[in-house]
Amino acid sequence: MIIDCHGHYTTAPAAHNDWRDGQKAAFKSGAKPPPYPAISDDEIRETIEQNQLKLIKERGADHTIFSPRASTMAHHVGDQAVSEAWSIACNDLIHRVTQLYPEVFTGVCMLPQNPKADLTASIRELRRCVEQLGFIGCNLNPDPGGGHFTHPPLTDESWFPIYEVLCELDVPAMIHVSGSCNPALHATGAFYIAADTVAFMQCLTSDLFRDFPTLKFVIPHGGGAVPYHWGRFRGLAQELKKPLLKDHLLNNVFFDTCVYHQPGIDLLTRVIPVDNILFASEMIGAVRGIDPETGHYFDDTKRYVEAAQIEPEARYKIYEGNARRVYPRLDAALKAKGR
Amino acid sequence: MIIDCHGHYTTAPAAHNDWRDGQKAAFKSGAKPPPYPAISDDEIRETIEQNQLKLIKERGADHTIFSPRASTMAHHVGDQAVSEAWSIACNDLIHRVTQLYPEVFTGVCMLPQNPKADLTASIRELRRCVEQLGFIGCNLNPDPGGGHFTHPPLTDESWFPIYEVLCELDVPAMIHVSGSCNPALHATGAFYIAADTVAFMQCLTSDLFRDFPTLKFVIPHGGGAVPYHWGRFRGLAQELKKPLLKDHLLNNVFFDTCVYHQPGIDLLTRVIPVDNILFASEMIGAVRGIDPETGHYFDDTKRYVEAAQIEPEARYKIYEGNARRVYPRLDAALKAKGR
Repeated sequence: MIIDCHGHYTTAPAAHNDWRDGQKAAFKSGAKPPPYPAISDDEIRETIEQNQLKLIKERGADHTIFSPRASTMAHHVGDQAVSEAWSIACNDLIHRVTQLYPEVFTGVCMLPQNPKADLTASIRELRRCVEQLGFIGCNLNPDPGGGHFTHPPLTDESWFPIYEVLCELDVPAMIHVSGSCNPALHATGAFYIAADTVAFMQCLTSDLFRDFPTLKFVIPHGGGAVPYHWGRFRGLAQELKKPLLKDHLLNNVFFDTCVYHQPGIDLLTRVIPVDNILFASEMIGAVRGIDPETGHYFDDTKRYVEAAQIEPEARYKIYEGNARRVYPRLDAALKAKGR
Repeated sequence: MIIDCHGHYTTAPAAHNDWRDGQKAAFKSGAKPPPYPAISDDEIRETIEQNQLKLIKERGADHTIFSPRASTMAHHVGDQAVSEAWSIACNDLIHRVTQLYPEVFTGVCMLPQNPKADLTASIRELRRCVEQLGFIGCNLNPDPGGGHFTHPPLTDESWFPIYEVLCELDVPAMIHVSGSCNPALHATGAFYIAADTVAFMQCLTSDLFRDFPTLKFVIPHGGGAVPYHWGRFRGLAQELKKPLLKDHLLNNVFFDTCVYHQPGIDLLTRVIPVDNILFASEMIGAVRGIDPETGHYFDDTKRYVEAAQIEPEARYKIYEGNARRVYPRLDAALKAKGR
């Protein structure tokens, strides 16, 4: 079984996005937001079947862990109420996708973060999504301000209340920023990759996982720059008198395979222990074209994993075993269906 | 001949650093800065011979392109006058090193940038260092604010005056941030690597090198995350309707080899054309320890280049040929000495 742990609903129906525009405009003018539109099951089916489902079938994956579009979470827009209403709308839409295609999609939620708000609303929405909608994790934005890294590091105790709930519910957080409102930082080419690297280093300098030994973070986009600079990070941990990274971080931190060329996946699988790598493509996402050097989609990461020089057992872990371990609620749900 | 294009004077005499403390304190209290101390040649010799020179000899390099300590450039401290006085003091000290060891060190200057200042003073100092002190390049800080990426991207026309002078003098700029004043960003583990990646993406989204076809940037630390995500960057360039990266950026952008483990250097040399890779160690710098997995210093990057699966001609380019091409004033100076 091939589980893709990183897919966003980047092709949501136009009416959903139009509502967001209306909500933002209403906030700006001080008016009441418009009512959320009626979106039919057929509209959802159309956006999924022509896009994600088509590519999942073509590429030969089985299951996708699916969350709202990351770049439009835009936690810096509006206030807590705006962020919460938008999160609920997005997560409910993901829930409908998972109900229409229960064999293919399981939900991960976005959180109603806001740079000026505490995590009360985020915890409320996390609980709703996991306990009522059957979601199995969340996306946690380490820089809800959107591109200036003004938020306290992930190791600051202001984050601890949500970590307690993540541990209680036994769901991981993918550490994923949203759009950039910084003209110096391109969202998917600079901000995403920088934020992944920054998040890892925040964990490295702290003892966060001593305080939260069961907390699990998935760092997307192949872990940013981390595997490429694994020697630097091992060396910095040593300078900082931290334990070896495998003991200090690798019981809690996992990387996905959203690295869009063969040499990158080869490095990832060579450097990072196989138990810490989860298959993912972030399809349909930042890089949608066909690589002229290979003739295949850049984000068809299964091809790279297939071609990597690893044992079948390692490939099984990357495709399925690790996802079942990192997302225990997914494992339970799959097992309940005899999968 | 082995040329290390990235070394900082991290071991400068204590009196020099003490003066900086005095200068900062004077700025804070509104007093006149203290006079710069007398530092003897012997004091300089001691700090160099026990450190950089010792390791250069042990490791078997020949020449180092040497600049002031990056983490203490701290352009966000004080104002334009503070930054200029500090830059002059640091660059003059580098000049003394190059005069004491002309066979081993050639100078690259820091610039008196300041987040609130234009580039007039930086251009003045660049000219002084190149035209009077024999320096062959500069370090350009893309985020002089120190860790919030609030400065306009490197492609903004506010940078153009210094690009004109860099082209006129035919010297490259290494794009190198300084210390972080952001508690979310560890300097050498997060900010440096993130800034390298961000700088590359700024270049990618622009047509900077169409306007400045002879401008040359060296992106340090192996290019941040760029080689590991080369597929992503190639794909993003394609989405943005830019030319192939080799045509769009690789006549102007170069990466150094400050990547502190074998798999990283293997990826770099596999992915990036050999004409765009310059040997460097950033020794003595961020990672000073010995790798328990190899028994050698993490930053002894020559070992990784020696072990990389590349042709002797490629190794010559990485060690020497590319540095002579990217730093024409170094090449001329070496040739004048019959090297």
